Amino acid sequence: MRLRLDLAYDGTAFHGWAAQPSLRTVQGELEGALATVLRTPAAVTCAGRTDTGVHARGQVVHFDVEHATLVEAAGRSALPPVDALARSLNGVLDDDLHVRRVVEAPKGFDARFSAVWRRYAYRVSDDPGTADPLTRHHVLGWPRPLDVAAMNAAAALLVGEHDFAAFCKKREGATTIRTLLDLTWERDGGLLTATVRADAFCHNMVRSLVGCLVAVGEGRFEPTLAGEILLGAARDPRVTVLPAHGLTLEEVGYPADDELAARAQEAKAVRSLG
Amino acid sequence: MRLRLDLAYDGTAFHGWAAQPSLRTVQGELEGALATVLRTPAAVTCAGRTDTGVHARGQVVHFDVEHATLVEAAGRSALPPVDALARSLNGVLDDDLHVRRVVEAPKGFDARFSAVWRRYAYRVSDDPGTADPLTRHHVLGWPRPLDVAAMNAAAALLVGEHDFAAFCKKREGATTIRTLLDLTWERDGGLLTATVRADAFCHNMVRSLVGCLVAVGEGRFEPTLAGEILLGAARDPRVTVLPAHGLTLEEVGYPADDELAARAQEAKAVRSLG
Repeated sequence: MRLRLDLAYDGTAFHGWAAQPSLRTVQGELEGALATVLRTPAAVTCAGRTDTGVHARGQVVHFDVEHATLVEAAGRSALPPVDALARSLNGVLDDDLHVRRVVEAPKGFDARFSAVWRRYAYRVSDDPGTADPLTRHHVLGWPRPLDVAAMNAAAALLVGEHDFAAFCKKREGATTIRTLLDLTWERDGGLLTATVRADAFCHNMVRSLVGCLVAVGEGRFEPTLAGEILLGAARDPRVTVLPAHGLTLEEVGYPADDELAARAQEAKAVRSLG
Repeated sequence: MRLRLDLAYDGTAFHGWAAQPSLRTVQGELEGALATVLRTPAAVTCAGRTDTGVHARGQVVHFDVEHATLVEAAGRSALPPVDALARSLNGVLDDDLHVRRVVEAPKGFDARFSAVWRRYAYRVSDDPGTADPLTRHHVLGWPRPLDVAAMNAAAALLVGEHDFAAFCKKREGATTIRTLLDLTWERDGGLLTATVRADAFCHNMVRSLVGCLVAVGEGRFEPTLAGEILLGAARDPRVTVLPAHGLTLEEVGYPADDELAARAQEAKAVRSLG
């Protein structure tokens, strides 16, 4: 049987998602906890492979397990086996990685290839008069005031299906064409939050997009320059990649259960998602 | 001249407010930064002496300085001397302690004795399905669901001027009579926030009040028991003091400028605030 896990983590003390020997990673910690609780190795697949320092509130993961193994791990718990697993995992994991939910995945579900979109938030504080040390690990402090209207004007030029090579770290043999579904900034006092949603992202894409828009927000770039950089379709040295710690994977979207398998086939066929 | 500083801090790595030899405290760090920037010792007074692990977004502090010293410290800065001081302090301080604002204090201002109320927030998450590792340092996780309506019914019995000895760590010679102005809980999804506002608080009072109300919220206490415990007017072993890390000093209230000195006189005369 296949299980779906929903995860939240503070990325500060992780070397990103992907397991690496002798480094603390989200995948490494999670697979270690699963092996401890289930007493058998488990290999997990995630929807969005976050970089070092990037956080998540809505990471989605799947892995396969024998039903008997799951039942045995639940032992005499009064909870359903999937809920017992969530509780046991949280008992083993450190408090910067939390399993919010475990459910049996619907037929055809693949955390990575069934996903139809990923939504990230990037948070910036541009007012030292309201800066909040309690959120400093997931909000980037910016020393100058930002013009949200200009940032949103520029953002509108980037939405849609485009070759985002200007905003990506190129990977050999992988396409950089993506469909950017949402890119908007909202201000709440001194806190600016960018919502960035796309079918998928190439490497560094969110942090490059918001880097370009922050340059617009402080008046270094005209809003129209964002569109020109996009059309260049090649890595542009004017685009700054903002620090990882302002970035949080908030949610992953999946189609209706009866479209999961078809979506996974399609995604695997069309591109290597990187 | 007297300056007013507004501070925000993450209390996690501080041994509370009050300076202590060889321990890292908010007062110690701030006075050290002031001595560095002003090149002369400065003694600060705060509105609310927070315990180890308690946070602040609205701590208020005053200290006295010669005008010439302030101007000299600003050097060739283009900023007004008080703004230059804020910037210099933030350059010296670690990023868990932030000076939001420095202004010249109005005549008669005393950060402690002029204050007419202190407002704290206590935050609890009672839903493992939405628990957020990004806020774990200032939100207490609670393993069982809480009934906010019952907690507010109990809270209403505690508002007003009372002897809060049942909820205080007694200090010799100090009154435990306080005026509790607000005590309400609000739920936003899995996050519950208590707003607790009083003219002043005795030691452990906020964490004891919310401890009593959480016991009501999970059904261990009837709401009316909160009123009975209050009437007991003596430290009650049934009242649990909740952990420090859920508590944040949010705001301090002061009267109009022409009432500051009179208020300070009155507060010094009526009681020792502890």
